[in-house]
Amino acid sequence: MGSPERIKNVAKRVAKWKAAGYQLVVVPSAMSGETNRLISLAKEITSDPDSRELDMVCASGEQVSAGLLAMALKAQGVPAKSYCGWQVPIKSDNSFTKARIQSIDDTKVRKDLKEGFVVIITGFQGVTDEGDITTLGRGGSDTSAVAVAAALKAEECLIYTDVDGVYTTDPRVVPEARRLQKITFEEMLEMASLGSRVLQIRSVEFAGKYRVKTRVLSSLTDPLMPLEQEANSGTLITFEEEFKDKDIMEQAVVSGIAFSRDEAKITLVGVPDRPGIAYQILGPVAEANIDVDVIIQNTSTNGFTDFSFTVTRTEYAKALEVMKGVQAHLGAREIIGDTKVCKVSIVGIGMKSHVGVASTMFRCLSEEGINIQMISTSEIKTSVVIEDKYMELAVRALHRAFGLDQPA
Amino acid sequence: MGSPERIKNVAKRVAKWKAAGYQLVVVPSAMSGETNRLISLAKEITSDPDSRELDMVCASGEQVSAGLLAMALKAQGVPAKSYCGWQVPIKSDNSFTKARIQSIDDTKVRKDLKEGFVVIITGFQGVTDEGDITTLGRGGSDTSAVAVAAALKAEECLIYTDVDGVYTTDPRVVPEARRLQKITFEEMLEMASLGSRVLQIRSVEFAGKYRVKTRVLSSLTDPLMPLEQEANSGTLITFEEEFKDKDIMEQAVVSGIAFSRDEAKITLVGVPDRPGIAYQILGPVAEANIDVDVIIQNTSTNGFTDFSFTVTRTEYAKALEVMKGVQAHLGAREIIGDTKVCKVSIVGIGMKSHVGVASTMFRCLSEEGINIQMISTSEIKTSVVIEDKYMELAVRALHRAFGLDQPA
Repeated sequence: MGSPERIKNVAKRVAKWKAAGYQLVVVPSAMSGETNRLISLAKEITSDPDSRELDMVCASGEQVSAGLLAMALKAQGVPAKSYCGWQVPIKSDNSFTKARIQSIDDTKVRKDLKEGFVVIITGFQGVTDEGDITTLGRGGSDTSAVAVAAALKAEECLIYTDVDGVYTTDPRVVPEARRLQKITFEEMLEMASLGSRVLQIRSVEFAGKYRVKTRVLSSLTDPLMPLEQEANSGTLITFEEEFKDKDIMEQAVVSGIAFSRDEAKITLVGVPDRPGIAYQILGPVAEANIDVDVIIQNTSTNGFTDFSFTVTRTEYAKALEVMKGVQAHLGAREIIGDTKVCKVSIVGIGMKSHVGVASTMFRCLSEEGINIQMISTSEIKTSVVIEDKYMELAVRALHRAFGLDQPA
Repeated sequence: MGSPERIKNVAKRVAKWKAAGYQLVVVPSAMSGETNRLISLAKEITSDPDSRELDMVCASGEQVSAGLLAMALKAQGVPAKSYCGWQVPIKSDNSFTKARIQSIDDTKVRKDLKEGFVVIITGFQGVTDEGDITTLGRGGSDTSAVAVAAALKAEECLIYTDVDGVYTTDPRVVPEARRLQKITFEEMLEMASLGSRVLQIRSVEFAGKYRVKTRVLSSLTDPLMPLEQEANSGTLITFEEEFKDKDIMEQAVVSGIAFSRDEAKITLVGVPDRPGIAYQILGPVAEANIDVDVIIQNTSTNGFTDFSFTVTRTEYAKALEVMKGVQAHLGAREIIGDTKVCKVSIVGIGMKSHVGVASTMFRCLSEEGINIQMISTSEIKTSVVIEDKYMELAVRALHRAFGLDQPA
């Protein structure tokens, strides 16, 4: 929803779906730059704006684009009606600026759909029981769309964004990266949290929880492209059951390679190994509101152990400060910090039922002469922390090793 | 409400009143230029935007400034809470883009005031029984403020604007024009409708109907000017009863000179004088949705009469077209049109009880050699239509003739 011109294009696209007989609810985001403009205004007023009032201000962006889209549709002869979150209503808790949706009343929307309207509902916002306006936090429009789709038991939730789907890895790093036709919610969560920022992570959680089939597709294609073609474009995020036997056979063991350079490693060397050591180290980190990612504790030798964890680079200095206190308290020998690390992960629902996936990863990295500093595994993901200068090399090698550069 | 800087100044002013012990409700307008920006966006989408959706879009401007003002107050340590029209609620009819307020629920507002909050309510907007957002039309914030003041039975409604009050006439035409301390609602209506655009005319009607004492004062003064001084600045628009005997003695017979150059005159010459002639001439004009201002019908001679009226210059061509049909239908001899006219009016509640005011006006104009083309009178106003090149001369001469250049 970049400009009036783009809003008119969105209207053309919506009109095309409507003409094909679909009942449609559209959840527009604010026009691009608008939310930032509103936040800047607030910051000019005060460096620490009251959160209730900030939501009052920021919610206006989606209100404008919802109204404009309804106008554009009506101007094209498509009956349409826009609603703010409070008009539906989309009820939320009262955590202003990062509210969570609690319920959606579908009465009004269903009535309008039955009467032939395209219903437009502002993304990103809700209303509390007391009637205060809330916003769902940045990227909240994706979550709104999925939540509305869940409430209406929609056939599919289409999310138009500036990429045309989810890729096996970042095409800027691996030109051979392929768009995935399908991916499970679980895989998408691992991909998203590992840095493939296609959808807001909360919207994927929501889609998984409420089992909403969600398709990511490009908003930049010709709005009048054939419907059949558009309906099969992008990447469908769906349930594991949707990957039928045949699919699973054909499905690669690994779906994608995710990576993140925003990592820093801290190691506490020579920590006396006694019960509760992990809590004594990480408790103060959590109290300082620092997110910890990978955590490794080695088996102890002679009653001493080494304890390592990673944080984002922006929180590295703060975490190091916290560790100095911990070191004194525990009598650890040394703190080693390293900001020249990165994390590379292989993600795939197929890993559950295939042995040897991790070892393929380790062999591949070893063949490239890349030393692995930390390893962390889950059901559908294996991550390694390595020196950051090897990141692109590792991603490309793994992409090839798991056959992701081959047509599916 | 021009910019974040000005909003901070408004907050300082409000904080000052609050510190003096007043309970305050503030009705901000949109930031300057914002409503025009929103309308332009809509016009880029379609030349004829749907009115419900236009209100959805335009109402966002006031929502932003209400939120920003509440933030600014809280940042200054003043408890404040902003509400949209629908949150109060301010109920209106469903005439989108020009809705009329029907009722205001004061429950929430009174509760907040009692708890020590400054309450901020968006101007310009309401909500229908169906829950749709409406706007009151341009300048509607003035009307909102007066309506809220009426609902809360406020002591006074202060309207901060870009002029510091109501003047005896336009100071750009008569440098000696003085600011009036007080004016009645009726006089203000005559002044406003005659072109002294200080307040939206509907807000003055509303103030008169609901007996809300309304003070027009400048938003450009130092927000920290002493409260006593600010409370007595501007012009108070109030009831006739407020002008006590003593005031009336001192009160000039005429309060001000209004004028308008946006006038065009049409005369139908030689109209057969029979009953219903006025309706037969003006009916078609009204049907064409043209506003008629001054109307004059001369006494007939030999069964024929001349019939004149004025319209705004933008509607002159349209009115002339309508008259051609009327001429043919009635068999009138001739149509004379004249766009080089203007209207000058003297306005004053004192005229009711003073004879000879009109004749003073006519003598003054005659002494200046100005020919009067039409005359129209009411209880508190006498207007003349004259050649437009004499307008400034007439205004200045009348201003002097009625002693308006003397200190009150």
